[in-house]
Amino acid sequence: MGEVLFPRMAVIGCGLIGSSVILAAREAGCVGEIIVADLSEAHRARIVELGYADKVTGDIAEAVAGADLVVFAVPVLAMGEAAKAAAPAMKPGAIVTDVGSVKGFVAQALMAALPDTVFIVPGHPIAGTEHSGPDAGFAELFQSRWVILTPQPRQDDAYLEAVSQLSEFWRALGANVELMDDRHHDLVLAVTSHLPHLIAYNIVGTAADMEEVTQAEVMKYSAGGFRDFTRIAASDPTMWRDVFVANKEAVLEILGRFTEDLQALSRQIRWGESDKLFELFTRTREIRRGIIAAGQESAEPNFGRDRGKH
Amino acid sequence: MGEVLFPRMAVIGCGLIGSSVILAAREAGCVGEIIVADLSEAHRARIVELGYADKVTGDIAEAVAGADLVVFAVPVLAMGEAAKAAAPAMKPGAIVTDVGSVKGFVAQALMAALPDTVFIVPGHPIAGTEHSGPDAGFAELFQSRWVILTPQPRQDDAYLEAVSQLSEFWRALGANVELMDDRHHDLVLAVTSHLPHLIAYNIVGTAADMEEVTQAEVMKYSAGGFRDFTRIAASDPTMWRDVFVANKEAVLEILGRFTEDLQALSRQIRWGESDKLFELFTRTREIRRGIIAAGQESAEPNFGRDRGKH
Repeated sequence: MGEVLFPRMAVIGCGLIGSSVILAAREAGCVGEIIVADLSEAHRARIVELGYADKVTGDIAEAVAGADLVVFAVPVLAMGEAAKAAAPAMKPGAIVTDVGSVKGFVAQALMAALPDTVFIVPGHPIAGTEHSGPDAGFAELFQSRWVILTPQPRQDDAYLEAVSQLSEFWRALGANVELMDDRHHDLVLAVTSHLPHLIAYNIVGTAADMEEVTQAEVMKYSAGGFRDFTRIAASDPTMWRDVFVANKEAVLEILGRFTEDLQALSRQIRWGESDKLFELFTRTREIRRGIIAAGQESAEPNFGRDRGKH
Repeated sequence: MGEVLFPRMAVIGCGLIGSSVILAAREAGCVGEIIVADLSEAHRARIVELGYADKVTGDIAEAVAGADLVVFAVPVLAMGEAAKAAAPAMKPGAIVTDVGSVKGFVAQALMAALPDTVFIVPGHPIAGTEHSGPDAGFAELFQSRWVILTPQPRQDDAYLEAVSQLSEFWRALGANVELMDDRHHDLVLAVTSHLPHLIAYNIVGTAADMEEVTQAEVMKYSAGGFRDFTRIAASDPTMWRDVFVANKEAVLEILGRFTEDLQALSRQIRWGESDKLFELFTRTREIRRGIIAAGQESAEPNFGRDRGKH
């Protein structure tokens, strides 16, 4: 067990990420008491059954009262309301963070709602699975993954100390920590996460709507590549709807580039420019090698999903 | 060991699929002698080292002489030349098949090149990994995967018997067999395999070309979704170039639908039509459940790639 960094942590929203934060923090021994607030009665009942928290409540203000660290782990568009409910009960000097996939929007929402006696340090763990809810969480989710913190442009010692403490918290959970401007975060994630999800949702929708090819055929022959896309297209619909509303500009910008490139590719196919296809298909191999070398992906064929067959 | 279906099998081209056919057929005990032809000297040397075959040659005619089953496992555009080289040495009554991802094009190429004393039954195993070459093969690759055979429109007993024998061969290798018209095959696979590969190659290319986001950032933060696409974008460039040349019409047709749908989605984001986004994101979850239920995908979160972390 490591050092207790926060005597009392409140987690607001206990889905995949909220429950994983709790399990990882417990395993690391870096927090004392853990209080969970969740607005869903079904979630609360399940969290009590799973024994994740010292206290489970539907009242956000009750949860944050006396907490040294408050982690908002609700969908991006729900952050503002959750912060408003928390505001009156916040302990002065508390560190407030979140796990939302869009940072500019969330920073605005938290700053508008919360008193300036707390230290707001927005954050985003680049980790997850396609599963949702309190049962989906696991303590190892953040191991070797990156957490991006997007601090406010403040240079006072108390704030810098809060950023440093929060960084230490995430490192205790097994993550690597990076600091970034929130605007840049939102652009980087539009490329590495938001566009991939949009494309995956779209291709699965296109395949489902074919008349000449049945859904049964799509499923049967999905091992040809399609099934890879269905994983992220099975992610939580509320979370992802919110991401596309809250990061509209960056997503549309990146989507525009993707579409341009796709049109060029389409034209190359139509005109039989096979050298250009070959050149692209060769170049893209390198990127995967880089990701594996960076420890962010399994080197096994088929993600290791066939491991049981060998 | 099962029954020997073919006393002598020739495999032309010994990459991922060719070598897996050999290993699976050996394990099943359903072939006698195995002869391999490969035009690459490096491949041939490696195949000898791996001990896959009873004989390894660079001469296709030599390989097919006396073979009861000939499996062409070369890239789609190379099928015609390989078949021409094999033609003079073909044993009358031999069954000839292939493993190419496009069936109409390959059927034409094989029929144009080969004598009508052999039985041509084109085929396509819907199985693979992102790795290439003789070292990438493994005996279990076809377990519970589908193999689509696209027989010619012939109803004579001898031909139907050949189709039946080839079906039995694939089932001995662990696969499920389906018969299909080659035109329909090429449309179905454009949806479940060719478009997914095109999209994956394209998004990896788009991400690599960003100016504001570095390649190092793309790699570091790829666990947000991007890394899933890099697997199929690391597939063999020659094979995939050939697929897009040989299945141009079907690919462009499906790509047109995908692009229309993507434009509608882009418009929904621009105008904040979040209900429509939510509706799509909910619908796409079902497709993955169907694929898992059909035994074509791992039910574990993240494809089970994090298994070591639990």
